[in-house]
Amino acid sequence: MTNRDKIQPLLDQLHQTHHMVDPKKKRFRRCKSAPLGEFAPVEMNEIKNDQSLPRSKSLLDKVHPSIKKVIIYLVIYLGIGTICFYLVRNKIKGKKIDGVLDSVYFCVVTMTTVGYGDIVPDSATTKLLACVFVFSGMALVGMILSKGADYLLEKQETLLIKALHIRRKVGPSEILEEIETNKVRYKCFMVAGFLIVLVVAGTVFLARVERLDTLDAFYCVCSTITTLGYGDKSFSTKAGRIFAIFWILSSTICLGQFFLYVAEFNTEKRQKELVKCVLSRRTTNVDLEEADLDDDGVVGAAEFVIYKLKEMGKINQHDIAAVLKEFESLDVDQSGTLSTADLILAQSSWTGR
Amino acid sequence: MTNRDKIQPLLDQLHQTHHMVDPKKKRFRRCKSAPLGEFAPVEMNEIKNDQSLPRSKSLLDKVHPSIKKVIIYLVIYLGIGTICFYLVRNKIKGKKIDGVLDSVYFCVVTMTTVGYGDIVPDSATTKLLACVFVFSGMALVGMILSKGADYLLEKQETLLIKALHIRRKVGPSEILEEIETNKVRYKCFMVAGFLIVLVVAGTVFLARVERLDTLDAFYCVCSTITTLGYGDKSFSTKAGRIFAIFWILSSTICLGQFFLYVAEFNTEKRQKELVKCVLSRRTTNVDLEEADLDDDGVVGAAEFVIYKLKEMGKINQHDIAAVLKEFESLDVDQSGTLSTADLILAQSSWTGR
Repeated sequence: MTNRDKIQPLLDQLHQTHHMVDPKKKRFRRCKSAPLGEFAPVEMNEIKNDQSLPRSKSLLDKVHPSIKKVIIYLVIYLGIGTICFYLVRNKIKGKKIDGVLDSVYFCVVTMTTVGYGDIVPDSATTKLLACVFVFSGMALVGMILSKGADYLLEKQETLLIKALHIRRKVGPSEILEEIETNKVRYKCFMVAGFLIVLVVAGTVFLARVERLDTLDAFYCVCSTITTLGYGDKSFSTKAGRIFAIFWILSSTICLGQFFLYVAEFNTEKRQKELVKCVLSRRTTNVDLEEADLDDDGVVGAAEFVIYKLKEMGKINQHDIAAVLKEFESLDVDQSGTLSTADLILAQSSWTGR
Repeated sequence: MTNRDKIQPLLDQLHQTHHMVDPKKKRFRRCKSAPLGEFAPVEMNEIKNDQSLPRSKSLLDKVHPSIKKVIIYLVIYLGIGTICFYLVRNKIKGKKIDGVLDSVYFCVVTMTTVGYGDIVPDSATTKLLACVFVFSGMALVGMILSKGADYLLEKQETLLIKALHIRRKVGPSEILEEIETNKVRYKCFMVAGFLIVLVVAGTVFLARVERLDTLDAFYCVCSTITTLGYGDKSFSTKAGRIFAIFWILSSTICLGQFFLYVAEFNTEKRQKELVKCVLSRRTTNVDLEEADLDDDGVVGAAEFVIYKLKEMGKINQHDIAAVLKEFESLDVDQSGTLSTADLILAQSSWTGR
């Protein structure tokens, strides 16, 4: 699971909780009247519509800059790398073609850990420099995988699914619902599609421009996107190296993202199975006793939700305890429930301090 | 985040929820009497003590087999790989030393995507074989990272922390508490420690056995653990290749795991900040209105917990709606609460069907 996947729901939550004040939209009531599936689109539309509000804008700005940051880091990294390796170009041996181009190419081959070995460092300084650049490059690729790529793919996804459904007359809410339900599956398919395009493009390019036979071209493509990089076949023409700079970066990141999505898909599948298993388990008296948070002999809807979500592993005792502590401090009149009276009392004790 | 990290809390939850039937251990009551920090050890001890119960054992068995599975897959993979590459050993060119050893070495260098290029395939068949083995090898390494390594490290962690605290007279519950609070941080440190040991071992070995000078040895180590593998320096003696088989596998996996833990640490830090921010936010009347799930005008402890956990992004409307649906079906008398009476009614309707 990438970092972005963790932050997105947090942001979504903030949107949802802050802008749903209409009493008609009470969650529990909605649950009684509307089937489960209709929730996602409603909330997603609300987020979309709320974009004009200043708070939403500041939250969206938090999403965008991560991409900007990634791009800026990448440019800085490649810039510094190119300058460094260009300055020590006489201490690098191998198939050289063009000073600056070779430096960028070497930088990309190193940061993606492809490491063909067609150009290798040939002095103590350049060797240490390569060590520094491979570690920082790995970290940067990790950052791209966790932030940028996922975001860009999600944008594409919506367009793709809209295009797929343009013939079937379905509303935007139904599209959004479908995206929500099969999010990870769509992501897998899409990134696999990108990967196929990149593999074909690489093979055709290597066969045409680098004049490899088709099998060797495909072998070089596989060896590159997996970052294996034996180096017996690599990019040795000027055009080839220009293409390589962009193609190696995008294809290695694409494969990495594919593996991440597959892992996410598997995790989600297992989680869904657990949810199903927890919900279908017969509720017993023991469960009721345990779920009874306020110890009043009956289990309210909210108590039941907490109990089941705990069983599903979505929340744990730590989370609950922290919130309960906050609840206690707010429940000034010790009634066991929060009301406007409590808030007023809390307010006065705050200002009294 | 690895898959195991997702499953572990699920398992922990199942332990916690099924074995805490003692009415003295009511969560809400405990929260009133005990500070937050003391929860973790209590629950962890309970899990430990429950190991004799048949249910716990079957759950633990679910953890162990994942390691067994990883080892079995690895052995099968290396076995098939060795046989395949041994059979086509005449179609592989480069620095050869010993038939079987070279095959295992080539297999490890390929699956970890190090790809030195000191031995490379030299026919259509071997090239395609290498393609197959690099993709499946990547998937296998991903599996090891997500399951085996994390589990083994967690085992080590407990021992390490116990050893660290052996002089300070602290109880096991305090140790467990410290592990729980700084879990990811300890994991980062520990895997970094392992990594340093592996780097030093590799450098010393390459300097002594492969007779590289220290800088070259270190350069080769960096080039290997990052899976860069330029191939200008690699293992070219018999002893070197035997060492390489074990060292390459463990060091590349170790570095991968290190990056995963750092990512996890960052995510957790951000999540903790969000929790802090949500809890410190002043509760308003609007919040109360929104949090009031059953619409009775006041907010109970459980309702408040759900509202805040939603705001933290730990749970979402989908999760809640699914459980509420289950609640509705159990609340046969439509009282808005579950009691033993509901269960009896539900039972009779079940048997009546």
